[in-house]
Formats: sequence, C-alpha cells, structure tokens
Amino acid sequence: MATQERGVRTRGLILRAAGAVFAERGFDGATINEVISRTGLTRGAFYFHFHDKEALANAVLAEQADAATVLPQHLKLQELVDAGLVFAHRVSVDLMLQGSIRLSVESGPGLGVERDKPFRTWIDHNLGLLRQAQDNGEVFPHVDAAEVAELLVGAFSGVQGLSEVLAGRRDLERRTVVLLSYLLPGIAVPSVLSRLDLSEGRGARIWQETCMAAEADPPTVQ
Amino acid sequence: MATQERGVRTRGLILRAAGAVFAERGFDGATINEVISRTGLTRGAFYFHFHDKEALANAVLAEQADAATVLPQHLKLQELVDAGLVFAHRVSVDLMLQGSIRLSVESGPGLGVERDKPFRTWIDHNLGLLRQAQDNGEVFPHVDAAEVAELLVGAFSGVQGLSEVLAGRRDLERRTVVLLSYLLPGIAVPSVLSRLDLSEGRGARIWQETCMAAEADPPTVQ
Repeated sequence: MATQERGVRTRGLILRAAGAVFAERGFDGATINEVISRTGLTRGAFYFHFHDKEALANAVLAEQADAATVLPQHLKLQELVDAGLVFAHRVSVDLMLQGSIRLSVESGPGLGVERDKPFRTWIDHNLGLLRQAQDNGEVFPHVDAAEVAELLVGAFSGVQGLSEVLAGRRDLERRTVVLLSYLLPGIAVPSVLSRLDLSEGRGARIWQETCMAAEADPPTVQ
Repeated sequence: MATQERGVRTRGLILRAAGAVFAERGFDGATINEVISRTGLTRGAFYFHFHDKEALANAVLAEQADAATVLPQHLKLQELVDAGLVFAHRVSVDLMLQGSIRLSVESGPGLGVERDKPFRTWIDHNLGLLRQAQDNGEVFPHVDAAEVAELLVGAFSGVQGLSEVLAGRRDLERRTVVLLSYLLPGIAVPSVLSRLDLSEGRGARIWQETCMAAEADPPTVQ
C-alpha cells in the first residue's frame, strides 16, 4: 500500500474512533487517550495526524459538512431531498456522524471548535441547489431561497434531535420524510412536487449508489 | 407575606438562578454551590426546595413545558401559532428557558434527568390544539395531527438551535415566523390560513397580554 493511501486510511480510522467517543461523551468528556486506545495506534501515529482535541473535533465536524453531496439529479429539488434522506439514513447508522452532530449541537466546547461550520456548509449547499431549482422553474416565485436553505437545515437538525431523544434515532428517516412532505408543498410547483420521490427507503438506496459510483470512479488524489 | 407565597417566590428565585447556570455550563458543568451563591440563600433554604441537582434540572425542564399555554383563541391554529411565537419571544430573552433547552437538547445528563419531558408535553399540547382545529374544519383532511404535532416540536427545536449557533438567538422570532409560514400552507385550509396572524411582534404582545390576564385573575393556589 502506498504511504499516502495508508495515511488516508489511518486518518479515517482515527476519525471514526473520535466520532464514536464524541457521540458518547461530548467534547468536554472525550479524551485523546480514549480515541488512541480505540484505534490501537501509537501516540506518535495519532499526533502525526491531529495535534490536539480541537483539531480532531473540527475534522469530525468537517465530515458532517462533506456528507451534503449526493448523486446529481435532473430535478434539483430531488437532489435537495436526496441530500436530506441520505444524511438521515447515514446519521441513523453512523457513529462518526452522530458524534459530529453532538459537537455542533452542544454549547460549551472551546472557541477553537467550529460548531457552526457544518450548518453553514449545509446552508450553502441547499442554497446552490435551490437557486438552480429556481432557474429551472421548479420553485414557486414567492419562495425566498436563502430563507428556505436555512429553514431546511434548522428544521432537519431539530427533527434529528427529537428522533434521538424519543427513539434513539430509529425513526429518523421516517421523520425526515414527514418534514419534507409538509414543507415541499409550499416550495415546489405542483408539476414538480408530484414527480419528487420522498419514499422512506430512498436515502439508503441513493447512498449505496453514491458509494458505488465513487468506487467505480474514485476522486483524484490531489 | 404569607409563608406559602414566600416559598413560591424562593422557588422561582432558585429556578431562575439554576436556569442561568445550566444555560452557561450545561448539566455536568453546573454545581449546586454556584446556584446557591447566585441566589444569596442559605444552604438550608435551598435544600428545603430541591434535594439534588437532578431534581433542580427536572424543575427547570418543567418550566419549559409549562410555557406552552397561551391565551385561548377562536381559531385553534392561531392558538398553536401563538404558543410558538410566544415561546420564541420568551426563549430569546429568558435565561431560565435557555438553560431548560440546553438540558433537553444535550446528551449526557444522568438518567434521572427527564430531558424528553418538555418535548412530550409540547407534543401533547400541539396535538390537543390540532384535534380541535380538525373538529372546527381549520385543517386539510389529509393532515395527520400526531405527525404534525411532533414535526412542529422537532422543527422548532432545531430552528431555535440554529438561531443560537448563528446569531445568539437574536433572530429566533423571525426564524419561527419563517418556519410557520412555510409549514402552515400544507396544514391550514386557505380560508383559515389567510386569517392567521404570523407577524413577528405578535409573540411579545401575546406574552404581555397573557401576563396581564394572569395578574388580573391569578391561578388559584391548589
């Protein structure tokens, strides 16, 4: 295995362990020692990648922001829906993303932890898709794309939190479908609304297709 | 001042101090000593009301649930809207409610802290109003009252959290209006929707009226 590839794998291993520790203990309760012991790495190998807990937290937060991208769709509102459904599916099964969400939702971590960053990245991502949807005539003329981009992020975040408190996130995909099914009639024109696929299993399916596409055509290493 | 009245005032004083400490430090970071020192009470006076930090946290959480009740309105959807607008107004200015929200949103506090309770109370409250609105013909026949009752709680909670992260809750009332203005067209029949008042200053005004009504006709002490 090439040195660079091994580095990427080690970094991924650390991020998954760190996400799980942040998910269980939050920022204040997490320790670098616990992360290291879960990876089985030496301290040297760990500190080659991350110099402190804040850097680790910010890398875990960045994974949440990266999760906004899914396969392109002809209808940009479908792509917007897919990003939400895929994220809901992944969050319900992925401890790293659960840790990332805990970091962004909880107050208190040091000033160096950029807990607003995933929110801002998702808002920008939604805004880009909503503007394209506007250009394509998918959206009612009265819709304020900037407002809706933020509303979707805020509302999803809370639906996710409620699902965690009431059901350990087991019903997050269903709750996300409910959110979208009540919001979209105020956003999508009827001819587009009737073509959107909001079914509950779609998130898992699209995520699998996204992974397979990435394997067939992996991103170029910079 | 009657002994009972003094007791109620002392309890309120403790809850406000405790809410502020929970808002700043979360459950784990808060100490009973800091709460006592902010109230200026003796330890004996404090422990007469609350025997430990979990009991204190649960009392602060209960204050959030109690905040769901506002003045009755002819349109039950207006009453539902008002509960949200009043809560948004109060949360943006009231440290005790901010502390209560932090307790309900953050993972981690001991098992004795009933962080799900405010969510469940608000869901029940919404459900009661939505069922009345259904009986009055205010709501589309396809609306699932139980789903919407939970959706409103989840979505508001997240909009509240996003407002905290991005703007220190300064824009919470505006964001709540945006949430309701995109959700209600999928819920309220057009003749009702056009009569609902979703204006941004309404929360503060209705809260003031609610307080004045309570003073003129205070709740009977059980």
